[in-house]
Amino acid sequence: MQYPEPVAKLIDSYMHLPGIGKKTATRLAFYTIDMNKDDVLNFAEALTDTKEKLKFCSICGNITENDPCDICADPNRDQSKILVVEQPKDVATMEKMKDYKGLYHVLHGVLSPMEGKGPDDINISSLIQRLQKNEAIQEVIVATNATPEGDATAMYLARLLKPAGIKVTRLARGLSVGSDIEYADEMTLFKAVEGRTEM
Amino acid sequence: MQYPEPVAKLIDSYMHLPGIGKKTATRLAFYTIDMNKDDVLNFAEALTDTKEKLKFCSICGNITENDPCDICADPNRDQSKILVVEQPKDVATMEKMKDYKGLYHVLHGVLSPMEGKGPDDINISSLIQRLQKNEAIQEVIVATNATPEGDATAMYLARLLKPAGIKVTRLARGLSVGSDIEYADEMTLFKAVEGRTEM
Repeated sequence: MQYPEPVAKLIDSYMHLPGIGKKTATRLAFYTIDMNKDDVLNFAEALTDTKEKLKFCSICGNITENDPCDICADPNRDQSKILVVEQPKDVATMEKMKDYKGLYHVLHGVLSPMEGKGPDDINISSLIQRLQKNEAIQEVIVATNATPEGDATAMYLARLLKPAGIKVTRLARGLSVGSDIEYADEMTLFKAVEGRTEM
Repeated sequence: MQYPEPVAKLIDSYMHLPGIGKKTATRLAFYTIDMNKDDVLNFAEALTDTKEKLKFCSICGNITENDPCDICADPNRDQSKILVVEQPKDVATMEKMKDYKGLYHVLHGVLSPMEGKGPDDINISSLIQRLQKNEAIQEVIVATNATPEGDATAMYLARLLKPAGIKVTRLARGLSVGSDIEYADEMTLFKAVEGRTEM
């Protein structure tokens, strides 16, 4: 016996999600069958909405319902700073901090020679255009991940933008707040010593 | 900044699933945004279908697209045996074994005094009706889980059905195939010794 077709289809859909294998997908599918109807229909609608209502902001590349996005359209944001991130979710993470009041730019990826991703494959040209069009921008803060690819992308942007007289900065490296020196890896310790600040 | 509304809604929906907290839900939502449109719309449709196309078989209580379900409607199944399980997913699990050719009955729960679940709260009365209507049935195999509630439900069914002259059996207890005696718990070892078979 096969599962009834709607069940098989739902298991298959759950298996498309990262980290979910056949067993978990089956468990989730049977759980879904027992969920109340409204919750399931809301779930289905939320999925459809991501494809039908969400778009990328034509200025910064962040996901948004309105174009330009709420951040780009907000005159109260500090127009002199652009913080560059790899993915839309990084914007949400930075915003949680509630301290940064500037603008964003989403690259939708990083430079990765291993995967054949060059400067033309990520959202860099539109960043250049923003900088050319808008003379208020004084600083570009590169907030790519602390990975080799993130580092390479940061270096690339610094070399590209500094000759144009724009200040390019990177997020500090060091110990995570609350972490033990005992458990820090060597590279992190090295960066923490290198970037030490006076008290 | 809040997430755009469709993203917030999707995170919320993912959080309805068991074992998925806010962080995983957020990760899944952003993953979904990057998935291709067809996969997401299929996923949404699969969810809707579970509520719109699936129903419970009026005979055995299993989930099905057609009523009666494929198993109840199949004249080639052994009409003399009914295997009683707790949940629809247990039917699917038993069917994977490919050896059992009889019919099923899904209780949709177990007796649980702790949760205030008595015989009227699970699908027992329809089992009695099936047995009364169909004289071909000779054996009821109780395949509830090996939990206190599953055991209690099995005992209840045995006491209820045996006086009517129906053979009531339970799945064997013992060592899992491939398991080490070293790691078996005492109850399982006790049941394995008790149920030992001659070679």
